[in-house]
Amino acid sequence: MTHVLDGPDTPFLALDEGKLDANIARLRDRLARLDTALRPHVKTAKSIEVARRLFDGGAGPITVSTLAEAEAFADAGFTDILYAVGISPAKLGRVGKLRERGVDLVVLLDSVDQADAVAGAGIPALIEIDCDGHRGGVQPNSPELVKIAQKLGARTRGVLAHAGESYFAYTPEALAAAAENERRCAVEAAETLRAAGHAVAVVSIGSTPTAHFVEDLTGVTEVRAGNFVFFDLVMAGIGVCQVDDLALTVVTTVIGHQPDKGWIITDGGWMATSRDRGTASQPVDQGYGLVADINGRVHEDLLMTGASQEHGILSVRPGSTATLPDIPIGTRLRVLPNHACATAAQHDRYHVISPDSQRVWHRVRGW
Amino acid sequence: MTHVLDGPDTPFLALDEGKLDANIARLRDRLARLDTALRPHVKTAKSIEVARRLFDGGAGPITVSTLAEAEAFADAGFTDILYAVGISPAKLGRVGKLRERGVDLVVLLDSVDQADAVAGAGIPALIEIDCDGHRGGVQPNSPELVKIAQKLGARTRGVLAHAGESYFAYTPEALAAAAENERRCAVEAAETLRAAGHAVAVVSIGSTPTAHFVEDLTGVTEVRAGNFVFFDLVMAGIGVCQVDDLALTVVTTVIGHQPDKGWIITDGGWMATSRDRGTASQPVDQGYGLVADINGRVHEDLLMTGASQEHGILSVRPGSTATLPDIPIGTRLRVLPNHACATAAQHDRYHVISPDSQRVWHRVRGW
Repeated sequence: MTHVLDGPDTPFLALDEGKLDANIARLRDRLARLDTALRPHVKTAKSIEVARRLFDGGAGPITVSTLAEAEAFADAGFTDILYAVGISPAKLGRVGKLRERGVDLVVLLDSVDQADAVAGAGIPALIEIDCDGHRGGVQPNSPELVKIAQKLGARTRGVLAHAGESYFAYTPEALAAAAENERRCAVEAAETLRAAGHAVAVVSIGSTPTAHFVEDLTGVTEVRAGNFVFFDLVMAGIGVCQVDDLALTVVTTVIGHQPDKGWIITDGGWMATSRDRGTASQPVDQGYGLVADINGRVHEDLLMTGASQEHGILSVRPGSTATLPDIPIGTRLRVLPNHACATAAQHDRYHVISPDSQRVWHRVRGW
Repeated sequence: MTHVLDGPDTPFLALDEGKLDANIARLRDRLARLDTALRPHVKTAKSIEVARRLFDGGAGPITVSTLAEAEAFADAGFTDILYAVGISPAKLGRVGKLRERGVDLVVLLDSVDQADAVAGAGIPALIEIDCDGHRGGVQPNSPELVKIAQKLGARTRGVLAHAGESYFAYTPEALAAAAENERRCAVEAAETLRAAGHAVAVVSIGSTPTAHFVEDLTGVTEVRAGNFVFFDLVMAGIGVCQVDDLALTVVTTVIGHQPDKGWIITDGGWMATSRDRGTASQPVDQGYGLVADINGRVHEDLLMTGASQEHGILSVRPGSTATLPDIPIGTRLRVLPNHACATAAQHDRYHVISPDSQRVWHRVRGW
């Protein structure tokens, strides 16, 4: 193992293959038990290799957050793709080109204006349903929903809901309630449309928290989730995973000490971790991340508490009685991220920690 | 102008060439008047083209934040390079290779352990001086400083200070005081070393705030600054520039409305702007950025107040009595960033706004 972690100059992303595979197996097994399809969101890993592991090396249905992802995954043989960000009419040309290549690329929208443009271009769409007020979407029983479907006509593929509220649920009961609300809301929207005479083939719900706590998927045709392949401290904070499940870490090197300030300084700043402070609003604030040794053992109460572009500041968790460990210059450490999507986005590639090989997996970038 | 801004699919970075040139001229003229060399920090733009504009198309002294920058700028003909992040001994091999190519690459350090490794490799170094407690460095009159120089011997090139405190100074007087403290501290360190018998060729200070407010550069040989080429809302917030000086914006498109919540939704989320909330601790919190129309006219009190990966939420500034403007789906807007270094880092290229040509400038990435 250590040859991978000793290899590249720091900072770099290390991806633990064993944890990745366990995280994938956990959700796949869960949804298999619930007899519902998984349409993973590739926006977290943005990696063809990670996506193929979700389908035993094949290419199943995926969700993307950019057309650059759609194009890269289409090039890799993925043909069933949902672009789950509200469509901008100017992007329909690229959508059309992918569809001409035989990719069943479906777009998302929540207005009559978008539906007008999409229907004119002959592109199928899901209608976004607002289940908890966190982003876009129309209400599941609203006249607007029916108007959009009327404008889309035969291009109405179905409905989609995303439980943004689930990222702020901190108990299994609250997570299960968020999941049931997401399901109920999407199914209600589908029923509204069916009552108005529209076919609704797809009822899509999902988020990493709700996908792991939903128990009843009646009326749902697919579940989306993305973050679960890596997990992160935000997910651990709401109880969806354990800290030990985190597959992604940033490897950094100690480059200085400021003992009077209680600091260890590393070469991993926000350029390597991102500026994401997602745990700041959780009960336990993890700063810019928990710090582990090179083998992944978490240092008790040592956090990355400060970040400039290429400097990380490590210090003891505020309020802790732990003493700052003595870690010499040149020592490699691993930082467990708050938000895997944001941290991974700062990098172009993953260095895969695996017992039997050295591999580098590249990320799709841009839009 | 509009052909550039109408061109790529959103989100993308637009760089206003006229503002870039004016920002460069302002600091160059200032330092010419003060008769001190500018060693710009290329970590903000990470662009060969931007750096060349600082030297009338040539290749002058630069500061870098990564060895990837040093290598890319060396390939482009830059031969006088300071790597201004504390050196990790494992990186000395790459440093040595650049020096063998004829690049005068100088490293930074603040410990005897680093000095031992660096001197053994025959590489010149600056010693980092802590002038205000914000990051690394030794005290300017400390025995440690002299010990490091003794270990470096003839490889002692000089001293470096960086006024981290200046980013929290909000008046011209406070900024001038931070600048004078930075200068005094670096010069005191140089005198400490000279008194101990060491030659000190370089006394390097700088930050964008202090470079614009320093008046006395006695004893200083060079000034570093990076952010000034673009500026940003944090710099405007502390009074170093005006909002109208900002050269970098993120172009986004309206993709939805949530009138009940007072939201406009765009396709520019944190992937396009970064998660940097640098103005949150300033007197005026600008959210994730001020919003302007496609021609750069700022919408009064319209902020990007929320961000998910590929969604931006725009709303009226909290406490404002302004009404949410009616902006149709498909309209392009420009977001002025909190922190240009972080926002630019989310992108691979700049689309240059210029009256006479369409150009794309690429960024150096990675480490």
